Amino acid sequence: MKYLKYDKKLDYSYILGAFPTLEAISNRPDLIEEIIVSSKYKKIDELKRTLGVRGIGYTVDDKLIARLSKKENVFVIGIFKKKLGGVLKDEDHLVLERVSNMGNLGTIIRTMVGLGMKNLVTIGNTCDIYNPKVIRASMGSFFKIRHTSYSNMGEYMKAHKENRDNFFFLLDKSATALSEVDLFEKRKISLIFGNEGSGLDRHYSEFGKSVFIEQTGDVDSLNLPVACALGIYQFKIGRNYGKRSNF
Amino acid sequence: MKYLKYDKKLDYSYILGAFPTLEAISNRPDLIEEIIVSSKYKKIDELKRTLGVRGIGYTVDDKLIARLSKKENVFVIGIFKKKLGGVLKDEDHLVLERVSNMGNLGTIIRTMVGLGMKNLVTIGNTCDIYNPKVIRASMGSFFKIRHTSYSNMGEYMKAHKENRDNFFFLLDKSATALSEVDLFEKRKISLIFGNEGSGLDRHYSEFGKSVFIEQTGDVDSLNLPVACALGIYQFKIGRNYGKRSNF
Repeated sequence: MKYLKYDKKLDYSYILGAFPTLEAISNRPDLIEEIIVSSKYKKIDELKRTLGVRGIGYTVDDKLIARLSKKENVFVIGIFKKKLGGVLKDEDHLVLERVSNMGNLGTIIRTMVGLGMKNLVTIGNTCDIYNPKVIRASMGSFFKIRHTSYSNMGEYMKAHKENRDNFFFLLDKSATALSEVDLFEKRKISLIFGNEGSGLDRHYSEFGKSVFIEQTGDVDSLNLPVACALGIYQFKIGRNYGKRSNF
Repeated sequence: MKYLKYDKKLDYSYILGAFPTLEAISNRPDLIEEIIVSSKYKKIDELKRTLGVRGIGYTVDDKLIARLSKKENVFVIGIFKKKLGGVLKDEDHLVLERVSNMGNLGTIIRTMVGLGMKNLVTIGNTCDIYNPKVIRASMGSFFKIRHTSYSNMGEYMKAHKENRDNFFFLLDKSATALSEVDLFEKRKISLIFGNEGSGLDRHYSEFGKSVFIEQTGDVDSLNLPVACALGIYQFKIGRNYGKRSNF
């Protein structure tokens, strides 16, 4: 099979690097199409073992490695099907509207997985979640999430009328301070963030509750991965919501 | 004066972009050496007003703009003296040992300023805090901090024996969980983080208390700006330490 330069329209994508490829093999062997290895890769025995127990093969192909990655330090590339499973109704969601920076998206995925959230919803015209840059920035955690995209917030709300509280993170001091939010432990939560430049539309708060992350007037805003991290930590760990139950 | 390509050894540095340059002019006019403007810059009247009230001039020089920035979208460059004031003994400190990524350092500065901390200590062989990439990633908040560097942790501890509690953030589950740390409100705090790859040496905890940010085993670690954000938020806002007093 001839693998093309990455494109959003392809039904496969690339994992650049041995570490995230090993994470993919361990977590989602069902998605793996092929493993390409450089003849210079030194830990081939470890890779063979990991692949062998799952009945997955590999191909040594220096030219393909060079073509797909322009960086010299990539020795392993995983090719995988773009088929993360969809989000679950009985779990908490992180919801990102129109996030545009792929490095941010990857860092947010790493952060949500690190803080115990595994369901990601993207809304509207978001950067391509399957782009190799997102996968690289996620540091291998990409293969531990579920993902569904909706074309707009209304559709997400319509699709998720289960026993769930929606929290919209706004740059609005009149919203409830993050450290003061009340939680009902039995209900699932959706933590909802807008994009890097413009945030969320304020009228969304009719769908749920508005939250403001306390911050000084000395910055315009916090950066998006930081805001997501504070929201997730405070809801999942810092407060009583199943406190540290997963840790 | 002939301005050279940025180098760590120069006693001046560059602010690339109108927004962070305006922040510098407003917050630290004393540091400004010169303002260089592109002939294509559209908001020249606003800039003139901001400069005028402070008695600072500007120079239109397209060649210099092109030489110092390789990006087309830079229309204003500020040249400033590398002289942030040193950290204060009667304020809280964020302490970073051997941080190596300039984008991370800039994001951390934005985050600390956003969450109400203004004193940054760097320890050991850290990336150059005055590099234009750091200033750019800080989104203009750079000119709101104080900064001191020490060659090693012992020197910092020796220099800051004031009424202060040191909290070392470790990847060690046996340390106190972040959400469980006890605080004495009257004492100043130092929140201390290691570098992106290796974290802090565990034996530092003899100088203070160890803290673990609760996280799943599904990631190796959280990224450094995220870890700093969680630490600062939890100590400064989420708990009782002068809760929201600055907001």
